Amino acid sequence: MTYCLGIKLKQHIILMSDSRTSAGVDNISSYSKMWRYGVPGERQFVLCSAGNLATTQAVVTAIERDIREATPVNLLSVKSMPEASEYLGKLSVECQKKNTGGGPVYESTFLFAGEIMGSSPELHMVYSQGNFIASSSQVPFLQIGETKYGKPILDRAIREDMDVDRAVLGALVSMDATVKSNLTVGPPFELYVLDCGTLQPGRYLSFDADDKYLANLRKCWNKLMEEALNKLEAPQWGV
Amino acid sequence: MTYCLGIKLKQHIILMSDSRTSAGVDNISSYSKMWRYGVPGERQFVLCSAGNLATTQAVVTAIERDIREATPVNLLSVKSMPEASEYLGKLSVECQKKNTGGGPVYESTFLFAGEIMGSSPELHMVYSQGNFIASSSQVPFLQIGETKYGKPILDRAIREDMDVDRAVLGALVSMDATVKSNLTVGPPFELYVLDCGTLQPGRYLSFDADDKYLANLRKCWNKLMEEALNKLEAPQWGV
Repeated sequence: MTYCLGIKLKQHIILMSDSRTSAGVDNISSYSKMWRYGVPGERQFVLCSAGNLATTQAVVTAIERDIREATPVNLLSVKSMPEASEYLGKLSVECQKKNTGGGPVYESTFLFAGEIMGSSPELHMVYSQGNFIASSSQVPFLQIGETKYGKPILDRAIREDMDVDRAVLGALVSMDATVKSNLTVGPPFELYVLDCGTLQPGRYLSFDADDKYLANLRKCWNKLMEEALNKLEAPQWGV
Repeated sequence: MTYCLGIKLKQHIILMSDSRTSAGVDNISSYSKMWRYGVPGERQFVLCSAGNLATTQAVVTAIERDIREATPVNLLSVKSMPEASEYLGKLSVECQKKNTGGGPVYESTFLFAGEIMGSSPELHMVYSQGNFIASSSQVPFLQIGETKYGKPILDRAIREDMDVDRAVLGALVSMDATVKSNLTVGPPFELYVLDCGTLQPGRYLSFDADDKYLANLRKCWNKLMEEALNKLEAPQWGV
């Protein structure tokens, strides 16, 4: 399994991913699920994946091959995020079908964000079928993989017009909630913030399993949750 | 779908359940998923269910029939919670199999808590297979149905030795997180607290869809979450 989330604020796009891959609990490993592409001053992309690792790696290889060979449509030639996601969806469907031999398709789903000069920054979810949706100002986040444990904090605290540091903290808490409950989501955790309008490579952080900042964040959050319960009014029991 | 949770503190057992039943989003209805049985001064039970409604109703009917007919084994004759859950599991397996005609079994899962004089109070989860587990002091809560959205707050804030009012608030927040994300979990919500050692009927509350207390609780909790994010230290970005 996997957990990746994306948050689209007015001036920033945040992506976060875990790195665990598993084929059963006795066969786990770590692979980055985040890739970044760009030309400073012209375009920036960040891609996160959930699903079949072979498919994901094939898609990434194809993206990089197309850039290298300067095919008519590639990430450095598309003119907008919708065009970019259409291209990604097409590659994904091709890669998923390649090795099935008529059997089940090896599905992958993507979070894909970016900005291209002259076009608006967008955050998309590209389904395994190749089609995609964009985040909205009503619900400014998208999730793939094991999405349920980490959703309540996003539902409650993430707004399009919020401060980017607080939204990053919301993403970290959401990831932490997921890791605690699902063994197939694990470190290192990668965090990327694209500062819209700059067209420069975003800010990037990676957190290992023994990261002291994350351990402290978890401890603080647990304490804040206990304190928050203290501040709520208890229900009145009938007599 | 359904969400029910149980919390076993040192001196209290809390059960909470939603009331939505659905057979597709265009066929939803409300049924209580909580039943209480007892003889004051001697024994008290509370039962919550998730799964097939016909099976659940058949199990409840059988429990009440056995009490009425004073069969050798019934809820008023068993001597401990493990005996009670074994009896419940047996009834459940019988009811699940009755109408299958060899086809798929109509499964139900139960949270079952209670106390019998001379025996310790316990909180159990009775699987559709008829076997069961008890809560532990390490993880003093059990959940059935749509369990994921509501788990993080329980993971972070529920301890066996905590105050009962705070644990009740934890249960309410956990239910609220679930309702927000899963349309097939809905009001009225039922809340029951068994005060262990008294052997008296527990405290009971029901919250309707338009309950002002719950609406206010949700508002306060959302605000507390936003404030909690403010109190966390943001990660340091590399230069």
